[in-house]
Amino acid sequence: MKHLTLDLSGFSASAIAGAGISDSDLDGIAPRARDAFAEAMACWKRGDVGFWDLPDDHGAVADAKAAAARLPAEVDTLVVLGIGGSSLGPHALWSALVPPFGERGAGRRLLFPDNSDPATMAALLASCPPERTAYNVVTKSGGTAETAAQLLIVERHLVAAVGEEGARARLLATTDPERGGLRALAGERGWATLPVPANVGGRFSVLSAVGLYPAAVAGLDIAGLLDGARAVRDDIVAAGDDLRKNPALALAALLHWQNAEAGRPLVVVMPYADALYDCADWFRQLWGESLGKRSDIAPTPIASRMATDQHSQLQLYTEGPDDKSYLVLAPAKRPALVMPGDGPVAARPEYGYLANRQLGELIDAELRGTVASLGARQRPVATLLLDEVSSPAVGALLFLFEAAAAFAGPLYGVNPYDQPGVEEAKRLAFGALGRPGFEAEAEKLAVRPRPGGLIF
Amino acid sequence: MKHLTLDLSGFSASAIAGAGISDSDLDGIAPRARDAFAEAMACWKRGDVGFWDLPDDHGAVADAKAAAARLPAEVDTLVVLGIGGSSLGPHALWSALVPPFGERGAGRRLLFPDNSDPATMAALLASCPPERTAYNVVTKSGGTAETAAQLLIVERHLVAAVGEEGARARLLATTDPERGGLRALAGERGWATLPVPANVGGRFSVLSAVGLYPAAVAGLDIAGLLDGARAVRDDIVAAGDDLRKNPALALAALLHWQNAEAGRPLVVVMPYADALYDCADWFRQLWGESLGKRSDIAPTPIASRMATDQHSQLQLYTEGPDDKSYLVLAPAKRPALVMPGDGPVAARPEYGYLANRQLGELIDAELRGTVASLGARQRPVATLLLDEVSSPAVGALLFLFEAAAAFAGPLYGVNPYDQPGVEEAKRLAFGALGRPGFEAEAEKLAVRPRPGGLIF
Repeated sequence: MKHLTLDLSGFSASAIAGAGISDSDLDGIAPRARDAFAEAMACWKRGDVGFWDLPDDHGAVADAKAAAARLPAEVDTLVVLGIGGSSLGPHALWSALVPPFGERGAGRRLLFPDNSDPATMAALLASCPPERTAYNVVTKSGGTAETAAQLLIVERHLVAAVGEEGARARLLATTDPERGGLRALAGERGWATLPVPANVGGRFSVLSAVGLYPAAVAGLDIAGLLDGARAVRDDIVAAGDDLRKNPALALAALLHWQNAEAGRPLVVVMPYADALYDCADWFRQLWGESLGKRSDIAPTPIASRMATDQHSQLQLYTEGPDDKSYLVLAPAKRPALVMPGDGPVAARPEYGYLANRQLGELIDAELRGTVASLGARQRPVATLLLDEVSSPAVGALLFLFEAAAAFAGPLYGVNPYDQPGVEEAKRLAFGALGRPGFEAEAEKLAVRPRPGGLIF
Repeated sequence: MKHLTLDLSGFSASAIAGAGISDSDLDGIAPRARDAFAEAMACWKRGDVGFWDLPDDHGAVADAKAAAARLPAEVDTLVVLGIGGSSLGPHALWSALVPPFGERGAGRRLLFPDNSDPATMAALLASCPPERTAYNVVTKSGGTAETAAQLLIVERHLVAAVGEEGARARLLATTDPERGGLRALAGERGWATLPVPANVGGRFSVLSAVGLYPAAVAGLDIAGLLDGARAVRDDIVAAGDDLRKNPALALAALLHWQNAEAGRPLVVVMPYADALYDCADWFRQLWGESLGKRSDIAPTPIASRMATDQHSQLQLYTEGPDDKSYLVLAPAKRPALVMPGDGPVAARPEYGYLANRQLGELIDAELRGTVASLGARQRPVATLLLDEVSSPAVGALLFLFEAAAAFAGPLYGVNPYDQPGVEEAKRLAFGALGRPGFEAEAEKLAVRPRPGGLIF
């Protein structure tokens, strides 16, 4: 693939003997993979599933850039008000492509309060002067409670400080092109809007305006994101239904095999680069919410920051149960930062081996050590290398995962595009809040005293 | 308990019928719990395991405060150079007790680069002016490669900018009181030092100088941390070996039962407060590295940010396999932040139910909805409430978990204080770097060509 190299050979019997997948196993799962490919393509061709088309949407790029350019000059921060895919997607782009600790080049700062935590929101409002802060309200349905709550607070806060006109210049709603409360409200108030295509769900929306607008405000190369995604998409479509040729289909089919046949329901995504951690966190939603629908089989995705988690989780990964597959993410190129060889630290015998080496050599050595150590214990480790952490490579990475989720859904026998299991908790929360129409749910929450004990 | 309320009744048969633990099950595991209590206490009394004594170490509080007071007045940032427990512990304290987004009161800013990522370190050095930045190098053994690498780079960076004397005023080493390369180096260079007691391992060190010094620099109430921990410790010790009376023993025994008897190896810690997320991340190390030692049985800890993950993982938690126990963390009190009732947002019928409510009511309603939804599907959910997010309550929380890990070790039949499984990966990484003495490991890393296929 352009920008990416996916190496699944660490899952194979040639790497980890009986713990891996054999050629005949591959032959055995090939027919189901072919069916899964066909089903995913049919969803696209019918128009039910639109994320496949996003890489071609040059208009969305232009619109996002134009909207970003209209922000008042004094605005230096954009706060994304959203939760789930509405926040995880742009957050992954920001973390991947902008250095941490406030060091950055062109572009504005992005903040992601994400949750509905009053401590977080209060700190946000206190630290962001209203005249210098814009807000992007993102909810496809318009009905997301957390996002509505954030908007209620922020709209008042802005109007009080910069007036109706000032607030209008600082608010942009990203939502369904036609339906929902946020679309209606934006129309009433004259807020700028950008669309989430009706056939693109939240966890597949990062390459729509949901991700593109914040990324444009941050000064990122958003056309490059789509370029990278388009290259991978075209590779995937051209490769067709042969899992030995199609990287997204192979990733989906082999992770499904690990779960269904090898007793490994956990998928640990291990970014060996801080910049890629939030891509792994975004993957948690994509994989968990798309595929977590059957009580007899579903994968549990885990994001594990490396090399940091070598000092936290590697003990478990190495000596614990063989219930996990591992997917290492890393860039092939890293910035230069040398460890000096002539100072007092390097003069200590304990530390001399690091002298005059690049720091990137150390983290890459740790990656190799961990992969080899897990492999020696017959644990399956795949690697996914980005040529570098760039907009095209990140766009390619995210698209590869989305396509894999689209293929994994039929393999698991579930619809990867819905999330019926979260509705009940939402309704119960409405009941707890006393929302009209949810009286039955409020009743269910009535505290039932339990036989004593186990409370401390 | 003072500051904390642990409610494990959601694990019981009275809450979730056959999926929960019955009174006779509790009777059945009580003898092993008694033995585990005795073994943990014996390790303490023999002097092998010292974390139990840390809450009494008033001298450590005074030393941390004194060291913080000696920092040059122009220093506004302390960077913690460490990885694993050396970083996770102080990071948990910082996130819990200091508002996000740079809003804070007295005290200096803390930064945690943690990893050995050159992109992160380069951004850190670029954004932290040397004269205004101090560094706390934390490694008990002194030999941690990532921390040594950070120190090599930082020492040179500081000396070049502020000279030998200026660097000495800005560097403090937290390490073994007598042994290791960092202790020797600090002696040679005249750096200030603070001790990690020899019988306190990294993941049990947060209430030693490892956590206390950064917290003191941040202006936190470090005596309060120990007060809260001491109260819980005294409760635990006084409760003795009866799991129906001892909260840490009950937590350990019931989580072990979930894993060993109920087929639930995953422990999902769900903080319903952003401030507590890094306490959950710290718990991942504590639980994973202490207990992840047997291929037939070990828990996999997961940190799940709530309510955010309701839009990411709840689908899986609700409809996926019944292989998880859930532990909700939340504060009983939250800051006030009202959602206005008279603006244009509240006037939309979709959003009116939020009007004039506290944002904290929303997140608490979501907590209740999720707990009820999981309970209705016979999924085991415990809750651990802090009276508020304060130093004493956070100290109590972290100590409770440490005590639970000490009890869980013998229940799992493992030593909770070592981490033998990570040694091989370390040695292989040294081999990859060409460190003298690791030639055999370098040999093992030689690339063996694998039969083609599965590389894209």
